[in-house]
Amino acid sequence: MLSSSSSLAALLGTEFPLVQAPMAGVQGSRLAIAVSGAGALGSLPCAMLSTEAMRSELAALRDALGERPYNVNFFCHQAPVPDAAREAAWREALAPFLREFGIDPAAIPAGPGRNPFSTEAAEVLAEFRPRVVSFHFGLPAPDLLARVKAWGAVVLASATTVEEGLWLQAHGADAVIAQGLEAGGHRGHFLSHDLTRQPGLFALLPQLVAQLRVPVIAAGGIADAQGVAAAMALGAAGVQVGTAWLLCDEATTTPLHRAALKSEAARHTALTNLFTGRAARGIVNRLLREAGPMSAAAPEFPLATAAIAPLRAKAEAQGSGDFSPLWSGQNATGCREVPAAELVRALVRGFGRAG
Amino acid sequence: MLSSSSSLAALLGTEFPLVQAPMAGVQGSRLAIAVSGAGALGSLPCAMLSTEAMRSELAALRDALGERPYNVNFFCHQAPVPDAAREAAWREALAPFLREFGIDPAAIPAGPGRNPFSTEAAEVLAEFRPRVVSFHFGLPAPDLLARVKAWGAVVLASATTVEEGLWLQAHGADAVIAQGLEAGGHRGHFLSHDLTRQPGLFALLPQLVAQLRVPVIAAGGIADAQGVAAAMALGAAGVQVGTAWLLCDEATTTPLHRAALKSEAARHTALTNLFTGRAARGIVNRLLREAGPMSAAAPEFPLATAAIAPLRAKAEAQGSGDFSPLWSGQNATGCREVPAAELVRALVRGFGRAG
Repeated sequence: MLSSSSSLAALLGTEFPLVQAPMAGVQGSRLAIAVSGAGALGSLPCAMLSTEAMRSELAALRDALGERPYNVNFFCHQAPVPDAAREAAWREALAPFLREFGIDPAAIPAGPGRNPFSTEAAEVLAEFRPRVVSFHFGLPAPDLLARVKAWGAVVLASATTVEEGLWLQAHGADAVIAQGLEAGGHRGHFLSHDLTRQPGLFALLPQLVAQLRVPVIAAGGIADAQGVAAAMALGAAGVQVGTAWLLCDEATTTPLHRAALKSEAARHTALTNLFTGRAARGIVNRLLREAGPMSAAAPEFPLATAAIAPLRAKAEAQGSGDFSPLWSGQNATGCREVPAAELVRALVRGFGRAG
Repeated sequence: MLSSSSSLAALLGTEFPLVQAPMAGVQGSRLAIAVSGAGALGSLPCAMLSTEAMRSELAALRDALGERPYNVNFFCHQAPVPDAAREAAWREALAPFLREFGIDPAAIPAGPGRNPFSTEAAEVLAEFRPRVVSFHFGLPAPDLLARVKAWGAVVLASATTVEEGLWLQAHGADAVIAQGLEAGGHRGHFLSHDLTRQPGLFALLPQLVAQLRVPVIAAGGIADAQGVAAAMALGAAGVQVGTAWLLCDEATTTPLHRAALKSEAARHTALTNLFTGRAARGIVNRLLREAGPMSAAAPEFPLATAAIAPLRAKAEAQGSGDFSPLWSGQNATGCREVPAAELVRALVRGFGRAG
């Protein structure tokens, strides 16, 4: 174990083989800086950033971290073609909620949603040459991936099945993140949308370790040093932790989201496509209960977001998280209201226990 | 860890805190005898045994093991009231398959299904006074449970959520099995049938360990010594392993089922209610693909079995597992064609690595 985790840390350029999962919407450069500053790998999620915002965040990372490594994360879905009939069906499905809040379905603007990795993003990235770049939903097209590799970036990508791990290794990933079903936020699946194919981490991790040559980073349900040690015992080269950071001072998690994470409600999460059109794990709230967590009416990712946005805004203005995406993994017990560096120190104790 | 696992072994009366998961339909006393003989806890599943068969199997265990402990397992569902309309709808849903095999839906006999724990079973059990008795789907009624406790039996039961673990502890379980979503065969859930509530083992196990006073036994996706070590790192007092035994010489797994477990098909399992009416994990085969793994038409557990039985028999006679329940957890990589005692020796190496 020791050699495997040491070699991943060497690959990432970090002191510890610990990655802070990129979490669009609940963190920016501030959390990444704190985590990287403490010897782990902080991550900047770019899916919801404009090119300008991205440049500004990357400058903040560079200025704060100097030569210390950080990770920049992108989604790489195919941008969808809007479908008026599907959009109308979606607004119809949400009509009772929209009516309740006095929202005119015809007046909802198209939302910005989430952007896939693009030539423009690659150009901005090239100005900063981050040590690590990670992708979700597969990998970008070969020419775009080549741009990132041109400055020697280490490429990470998420696999939710053995097949996806083999695909990512064959297509240029330098390390693969084993995303167990326990993980919060968007599932990274890209070869099949059949959710029954996605195993829990206890099953996925050892199978990926056995099948891949590249290092495997464990993700999903890891909340403390014991979880880190368990992942290392299963052969991981390192771990990625997400949910546990959500209460850290440097995260931008909303007060409503923080309250949900601290409550017993956090014991019940579900995969839902209601917020974006793709399956993502969050705490079950009123929208998930009443609409059912998975809806066939939801438009393609990320178009479902637009019609939810005004509902969310109106409910949040009333102090309610009923229509908010309360992203969380299945184990929120590691969330701590501490500076992120303290959480890094607590988590990395788990590396000492394995091997 | 060491003291926790030692104390579970002391509670069970075994050398190792390793439980062979009871697996109705694929094993009987022979596997249990081999496992208990090697210092772990073998289990006899009784859900599909008549009172007479149970007595005969228990006699075999007693004669072979003497004072060595073994576990006897029961389901404790409410026996369902047959519903003619629902049964008709179920046969209608299966009509294309029944036609293909020339089976007259009207001529299908009611199946024996699976029996819940009963006064009669408790009487047979009292003759043998097994050291350990385990239950699935909750616990039997208090008076029935009291009969089992009367001779000092250690009572185990499965929890799929934190809430179920707390309930089992409050109602008399001496240790709780944390059944992660990865596990093969029937899910043990009993407080809620909402499958989104059921976490993977990485999330479930540490939460149960944190919340319960009684020892927690980890189950689901554990296939080898590394899996055992990982579970112990997460705070388990011991582990229960199921799928890994299915290729052992002493298991009664059919050749079709064995072949599926050894193939790449075993990488894709799903929860299905088609075979019994309750969610159970098995390898995806033609029936699951074509009917969808979860059907609203399936009658209440275990009544769905009757209409599937002739399909399964006809297909198996043709050498096909298309309609067979190919139970498996999400990690079949630990299956080995060895005597069960050899698998015990391999798995218990994992205890040495933790703590």
